[in-house]
Amino acid sequence: MSNRSRPSVHPFDIQVPQLREGDAADNGAPPDATVRLKDVQGMPGTPAGLALRLFQFGFAAVSVAVMAATSDFPSVTAFRYLVGALSLQCLWSMSLAIVDLYALLVKRCLRNSRILGFFTIGDAITSTLTFAAACASAGITVLISSDFDNCAQNHCARFETSTAMAFVSWFLVSPSFFLSFWSLASR
Amino acid sequence: MSNRSRPSVHPFDIQVPQLREGDAADNGAPPDATVRLKDVQGMPGTPAGLALRLFQFGFAAVSVAVMAATSDFPSVTAFRYLVGALSLQCLWSMSLAIVDLYALLVKRCLRNSRILGFFTIGDAITSTLTFAAACASAGITVLISSDFDNCAQNHCARFETSTAMAFVSWFLVSPSFFLSFWSLASR
Repeated sequence: MSNRSRPSVHPFDIQVPQLREGDAADNGAPPDATVRLKDVQGMPGTPAGLALRLFQFGFAAVSVAVMAATSDFPSVTAFRYLVGALSLQCLWSMSLAIVDLYALLVKRCLRNSRILGFFTIGDAITSTLTFAAACASAGITVLISSDFDNCAQNHCARFETSTAMAFVSWFLVSPSFFLSFWSLASR
Repeated sequence: MSNRSRPSVHPFDIQVPQLREGDAADNGAPPDATVRLKDVQGMPGTPAGLALRLFQFGFAAVSVAVMAATSDFPSVTAFRYLVGALSLQCLWSMSLAIVDLYALLVKRCLRNSRILGFFTIGDAITSTLTFAAACASAGITVLISSDFDNCAQNHCARFETSTAMAFVSWFLVSPSFFLSFWSLASR
């Protein structure tokens, strides 16, 4: 059935027994590279991958919530952009957390190159937007708090917290992106 | 001699004749993947790679020069950071342009995994710093020009030019990074 309908989510136990010394050469892939991929926690469909997605979602949600709670954030373009970019990050991480959870529950692995490509491109886009938002907010937060020394009239602590959470969220997207990209490139 | 001294820079014409159907399987690598790598322009040691490095250097140098030419840039932390990060980018791109030029002149390819790893890590660090600097400067430039509408007292045009050049420089580092990372992962 799996050969005829070609599902995009392959069961674990179809590929693993094939990857013994002699067979690997026939598949055109070096045996160590393919086996090594199975061990990397943090890739899509692994418990560490699910944990990464949940932490990304959590930190992005905190960042948006803290920034949106300040009354004057809409007056600064970079802060508005941070709320938009981190909301997108929330949606993306939440969606992939659900996909990971499904893959774990039905014990399937997400090694299809189209799925990996989609995850890699999505991670690249969201992490770039998140990092850009965090950097722009950091620039303005430093400008307000250090250069202008104007924290009395502004919510410096909240801006700093929101920016820091955005950086943590970006920092947690990077391993997801690199592992997807690595496994896509080493197929 | 090449087998005994194991140079880190391998001549082109040692490996190419080996990569014919049957031999490739013995090397433990799929034939199409290895041959495809030879064709990718933009990788270290190719004319397009050298051109990318020179353009990265050029745009970074223009960005630093334009920002350093404004009298009031040291009063803003993000602008000082932009000058620092883009200067580092200049140095890195210039160094790798010299390495590429050397590899092209002596007709050697830079496919050693240690060299590729060094290039990938260096590109990742410099491109992250450059992008962070560009985003922080963009946030502040937009704050000054749009949110505060205060271009009469500030060099908005120069800040915008410098930021734009920094983004272009980052945009040109990305292909270098991705090609190095891809060829490192697909070895």
